[in-house]
This record gives sequence, structure tokens and C-alpha cells, in this order.
Amino acid sequence: MSELKNDRFLRALLKQPVDVTPVWMMRQAGRYLPEYRASRAKAGDFMSLCMNPELACEVTLQPLDRYPLDAAILFSDILTIPDAMGLGLYFETGEGPRFKKTVRSAEDVASLPVPDPERDLGYVMDAVRTIRRELNGRVPLIGFSGSPWTLATYMVEGGSSKDFRQAKAMAFNQPEAMHALLDKLAQSVTTYLNGQINAGAQAVQIFDTWGGALSSSAYLEFSLAYMKKIVDGLIREKDGRKIPVILFTKNGGQWLESIAATGTDALGLDWTTDIAKARARVGDQVALQGNMDPTMLYASPERIRQEVASILAGYGNGSGHVFNLGHGITPEVDPEHARVFIESVHELSAQYHQ
Amino acid sequence: MSELKNDRFLRALLKQPVDVTPVWMMRQAGRYLPEYRASRAKAGDFMSLCMNPELACEVTLQPLDRYPLDAAILFSDILTIPDAMGLGLYFETGEGPRFKKTVRSAEDVASLPVPDPERDLGYVMDAVRTIRRELNGRVPLIGFSGSPWTLATYMVEGGSSKDFRQAKAMAFNQPEAMHALLDKLAQSVTTYLNGQINAGAQAVQIFDTWGGALSSSAYLEFSLAYMKKIVDGLIREKDGRKIPVILFTKNGGQWLESIAATGTDALGLDWTTDIAKARARVGDQVALQGNMDPTMLYASPERIRQEVASILAGYGNGSGHVFNLGHGITPEVDPEHARVFIESVHELSAQYHQ
Repeated sequence: MSELKNDRFLRALLKQPVDVTPVWMMRQAGRYLPEYRASRAKAGDFMSLCMNPELACEVTLQPLDRYPLDAAILFSDILTIPDAMGLGLYFETGEGPRFKKTVRSAEDVASLPVPDPERDLGYVMDAVRTIRRELNGRVPLIGFSGSPWTLATYMVEGGSSKDFRQAKAMAFNQPEAMHALLDKLAQSVTTYLNGQINAGAQAVQIFDTWGGALSSSAYLEFSLAYMKKIVDGLIREKDGRKIPVILFTKNGGQWLESIAATGTDALGLDWTTDIAKARARVGDQVALQGNMDPTMLYASPERIRQEVASILAGYGNGSGHVFNLGHGITPEVDPEHARVFIESVHELSAQYHQ
Repeated sequence: MSELKNDRFLRALLKQPVDVTPVWMMRQAGRYLPEYRASRAKAGDFMSLCMNPELACEVTLQPLDRYPLDAAILFSDILTIPDAMGLGLYFETGEGPRFKKTVRSAEDVASLPVPDPERDLGYVMDAVRTIRRELNGRVPLIGFSGSPWTLATYMVEGGSSKDFRQAKAMAFNQPEAMHALLDKLAQSVTTYLNGQINAGAQAVQIFDTWGGALSSSAYLEFSLAYMKKIVDGLIREKDGRKIPVILFTKNGGQWLESIAATGTDALGLDWTTDIAKARARVGDQVALQGNMDPTMLYASPERIRQEVASILAGYGNGSGHVFNLGHGITPEVDPEHARVFIESVHELSAQYHQ
């Protein structure tokens, strides 16, 4: 593999000195970019884009060709694992993801296989290898997965949900069945992320999009405990280089101490958490990633710069901060506003790294 | 006015001793009750139900006739104020609230009137008077309003929103116009709640449903500052009795100290906050209301009782806790599960009040 030319992102995750604060954006390969929309049209639909390693590589690299981003993230979907388990993922226009089969009983759980990454998710592994080759050391490549609880919500509900009624009812009324499902998912995610690391991912992020919909005690029991299992089972070093792991629970700001205690390298923060307070609470233990409100990209360039400055000042001096949005960039954002955001981070952060 | 026969709710809000922990449910007069659905069918639609004081009274009292609840809450909508300002509230089937006119500029804001409660919102004042009369001292009546920020989101967006893009963009790009709007709304809410208090409301709650979608600094600037203005302007005592105020910011668990510092009597907690930790953080200053996950009502009666016991134990000994759900009860809940919830609170809480 070619040498890494820009390792700011990996260094910041490990709290090693950097020249400026590294930055990437969740969903940076996405619909706000006209070139992404063109690639997607070429693929036909979203899952065909995910399942085609060449096209997945193409869209992964698009934002890097436009902006001075410090990391690439694998283009894929969080629901590849349940699909590989045989639930039949499909997308209805304007609806969001759906599954042909749901999982609602101990019997349903027992019948689910733990997918083998190379055999059952080869298209993802091929995408990682293709992207690593094409990146040619420009920046590190992030692999990712949904968290067990987040995957379970879709599998039990059969798709998206407003209040996760079915998934929560299963957790409340059939806790053993839910724990068996989460345990199987934790095994699957561990194997899947290790597969991505073996294929070339240089850091991994777990997206716990729906952990924040749980009560505090249910979060610890049904979401965080399984993310910890994954952290414990991940390959943390490869070819003499650490492989950092980032846990991101949306609406998880009340539980930062518990998340940091899992042994993760970094916490992803959504925009509702004050980053200065977050650093005071857990900054000795972990790096922090985040956390500008993605809707700030609808503001004027001056206002975006001001917000970047305020978040940088909130984190303060020294390494351990990876700048990002607090959630994914949305389709209607002007790509030039994304540029202002990214360039401001580099421009305004040098003073904190002297 | 007749004497209050059950004042547990008011006493707990003021941290005065009680025999058992009082309980009510947000949206307790609602679609999960067949008698509510019958009244609504009689009214024709939701707003006709709100605007008819006799029917609004009828549905307000329905849950009290079924369950041993410790408070009644005015049946109304949070969007009565913007409607009285002339924005033209309407509901599309299966859609949620919409406005015919939106507010997106300083000129739009300048043209908005501050509604006079008796003249412009007389149907609400009449409903309060009717309910107070019909309650005849059984339990106290809670008045309510949406928070300025929450009302502003609907007024700027023209209805519900997923990411509040327009409202946030106005706050980011035209802060003076947004502050003028929020200021006008704070005046309107203060007058409206004082009108409800004069008509007979014995406590008031401000629903800040969407404050939790803001960043920490934006929450303080655009939501909490205006709730504090309202708290400062409310009638806090009437006929020799305190009128407690409750602030409820959904997803506000990270800001409890700031909310408590407004001078409110009580904080509403959603279910993501650990009530034991909340009490440790702010329990000297304020009472706490909440906070069972509303989806717990889909669990078995045994599991519901267990959760009630756990939240009671979390709060611990002494007064200052009003039990509630962490958000509104949902339409598909079995009314018998609501009964288990309410009765468990009374049954299991006596031990904490000895």
C-alpha cells in the first residue's frame, strides 16, 4: 500500500499533534453534489450504486476532488448487514428503507445467520479495496457500520419508524430475544468491520443513529453494551499503525462518560452538545468529532465561518478534535457552502496547534 | 370557586409534602380513548373540537372519569396563537398542521399583532372557565402554550418540519428578525397564559417541543431566553395560592441547569434523561416532572409497573416529583395499560412520602 500523504485525521483521533484541525463531513458523498447525482443516475438506484465497487469508489472520491477533506468514507448503506442476513432490503421512492421480512421473535432471531464479510458482503470489501487503491494514500479511508441497536430497529420495524414501537416493545416484553438479536448483530458488525479493516479501512465509525431514542438505562443495556462488545473485538492495529474507532450516538450527549468508558478512541458529537463541556467531561480519555449543526450550511458564508470559529474556540488548544457536522449533510445544501465550511476549519484552526 | 379536593399536583410542584406522587399524562385527552374519538367525530375535525368550549371541556374530563389522575389539562392546540395572529391554521388529513401564510422577514414579523386573549382567543378562555366549573374542585387545571421558538418554527416553515431549515436559516441569517418574532411571541404567550390563569388555570406548562433541535448556544439564545421572559411576566399567585409554572424542553436534558435558572417552578423531563441524575443536578431548585418512555405503554402490565417502580426509586424520597410520561401518550395505546401506569404510580410511591 502507498504511504499516507495526509494523516491529520488519524493523528487527531489519537491526540497526536497536527498542523491544523482535520475535517470531513458525514454523508460527504451525497445528493448535494451534482456529480453524485450523475453517478447515481448511471447506477439506476441507490442500492445498485452501493453494490457496484467501481461506482461506489467513484462517488467516495468525488468530494475529495472538490474539497481539501482530510478523510474519505466508504460509500455504502448502514443496512447491508440485515440485507446479507436475508431480510431483503429495498427502497420505495420517497419512503426510505424497507425490509421484506421482519424479526420479532426468538425463532426469527435464531434463524438469522452471521454474515461472512468476503462471502456475503464481498461487494463492500471490494469497494474498500478499490477505494484504497484509487485513493493512493491521499487521505485515510474510514469504514463504517450501523450499531446493533440501530440495525435492530429497522429489522424489527421492517423499515424506518417514528417511535420505534415494535423494537422497543420487543426489548421490553421479550428482552432475551432482543438480547439474542443484538448479540448476533454485535458479532456480525465486529466481523464486518474487521473485514473492512483487512480490506484497507484505516479507521472505523459506528453509527448509532437511534440509540438516543432510548431511555438512559435502556441505552446502556440495549445499545452501548453491544457497541462495547464490538470495540473489544475490533482489530485496533494493522501494519504498525493504530486503527482508531469512533462511536457516534445521535442524541447521546447525556451519556458521553459512559460512551468514553467503552475504550473507544473517539466520540462523535451531534450539534446539540456543547463541545467545550464535552471536552471537560471526557476529553482526557477520548478524541471528539463534530459538531456543527448541518443546517448551518444554509446560512451565509460569513455566518458559517463564525460558527466554525466558535466550535474551534470551544474545543480550544491542542489535538484531539476532528471537525465534522453533527449529522449528515443534507441534499439541498449549496456545494460552495460546504467548501466555505471545510476551508474555514483549516484556515481558522492553525492558531490552536502551535 | 369550589375548594380543591386533590391538590397533590400543586403541592408536589412546590415541593410541599404529599401522600403519594401525583400523576398525569401529556395528551391524556386523546385518540387512545374511544370516548375521545366519539367526541371528535361529533365535532367534525380537530380544530372544531378545540374551538368548541363544551366539547373541549368534555374531552378534557374524559380521562379523569376513567382514571385517578391528579390533574386535568386544558384541551387545545399549541398553534392557537399563530392562528390568532392571522396565519390561517389548518390540518391536512394525515399531514399535521399547516399555515396559509408564513413569516420569513422583518416585514412579516412587523405586521403580526399580539393577540388579546379574551378578544382573539376567547374560545380558549371560555374552555378554561367551562372546565374549571365542571371540574368543581376535583383536581387542578393546567393551562399551556407552545414556547416562542416552537411556535416560530411552525410559523416560519409553514407547518411541521424535519430539520427546521427555514426557521434556523432565519435565526442564522436574519437574527434581528428572528429575535423580533420571538419577542412578539413571548409577549403573546405571556398574555395568553395570564389570560388562562385569570380564567381559572391553576398551573401552566410551556411546551418547547423543538428547542432540543438547536445547538446548545442557539437553544439559550433563541429558545430559553424567551421562556425566561415569559416566566418573568407570568402571574405567579392568585387567590392566595401559587400558580406553578413548568418548562418542558423535549431533548433538553443537556441544559437542565440553565432551564432551572430561569426561575421556573418545575422542569419537564423527557424519557432520555435519568431522573436520579436530574435530581442531583437541579433538584434543590425545582420540582421534576416525568419521565417514562411513552412506548413503555406498549409493554406488558408487569413491565410497566417495573418501570414506574424504577423511576420512583430514581427520584427517591420526598416531594418534588410529578409523575408523567416523557412525551404524549400515543393513539394506539391500550387504555388499560394507561390505567396500570397511573395506578402503579399511586400504589408504589407511598413509601417515598413517609
